[in-house]
Amino acid sequence: MTNEEYMQIALDLARQAAQKDEVPIAALIVNPTSGEIIASAANESAHGSDATAHAEIMAIRRACAKLDTTRLWDLDMYVTLEPCTMCAAAISFARIRNLYFGATDEKGGAIISGVKFYEAPTCHHRPNISSGICADECGQLLKDFFKQKR
Amino acid sequence: MTNEEYMQIALDLARQAAQKDEVPIAALIVNPTSGEIIASAANESAHGSDATAHAEIMAIRRACAKLDTTRLWDLDMYVTLEPCTMCAAAISFARIRNLYFGATDEKGGAIISGVKFYEAPTCHHRPNISSGICADECGQLLKDFFKQKR
Repeated sequence: MTNEEYMQIALDLARQAAQKDEVPIAALIVNPTSGEIIASAANESAHGSDATAHAEIMAIRRACAKLDTTRLWDLDMYVTLEPCTMCAAAISFARIRNLYFGATDEKGGAIISGVKFYEAPTCHHRPNISSGICADECGQLLKDFFKQKR
Repeated sequence: MTNEEYMQIALDLARQAAQKDEVPIAALIVNPTSGEIIASAANESAHGSDATAHAEIMAIRRACAKLDTTRLWDLDMYVTLEPCTMCAAAISFARIRNLYFGATDEKGGAIISGVKFYEAPTCHHRPNISSGICADECGQLLKDFFKQKR
């Protein structure tokens, strides 16, 4: 499967989240060798009553539980939006190998925006980064969601 | 109760974590008006198979679940070590009012060390910070733990 095909699966999850009134962001954790999707999640903060339940955190927690580990060596993450500071650090702790994301987030992102955590001396594992995958579609989904909320 | 008395409770939890071979860091979430400890947690990463299960994240998740909210307005956190980048951002998302911490963490901290997240334009809620509470005791517990592991 191509990066765009994985991102389309994440986008479908994000659209389902929007229907439940959650901010439409979703993440997949993939084994790039087998192509298997190890874990997936959309944002669950509001309905889960958990300030930490961003899509990336939930996907990492599920993948760690499934594989009984805290280190997701050799696994990749696809996420529809540039990860925030919390998630950027969680992705580093989990040792994700390649991070693919869609839209950029100037207001809250922490990869190419904000604190740019992977460039900080206190970051001890840096995934490879590919951005802009299905970016317009990922960004438009968020814009439409917040427009409808106003 | 004083800040030092709360920190001693956190230190007791951290010591219990060390006995289970978890990195001895612990956190409390307190209602400063009633004095009630709403939630508490030690680091659970290794035994919980969860890269995100730092003490602060676990305490936030428990407090959110208990109060059925994602916003811990007017609540304070006590934590034995300066929070990392992931936890600093989670504390901000959860709207913690006052953050009290013990030892500083130059290698991994994100409050007065590292990315200093609360000074970043992408941080949208900044708790008040008090550092150095029982700092020597908090730091020594970690030093002893890692010395024993070598």
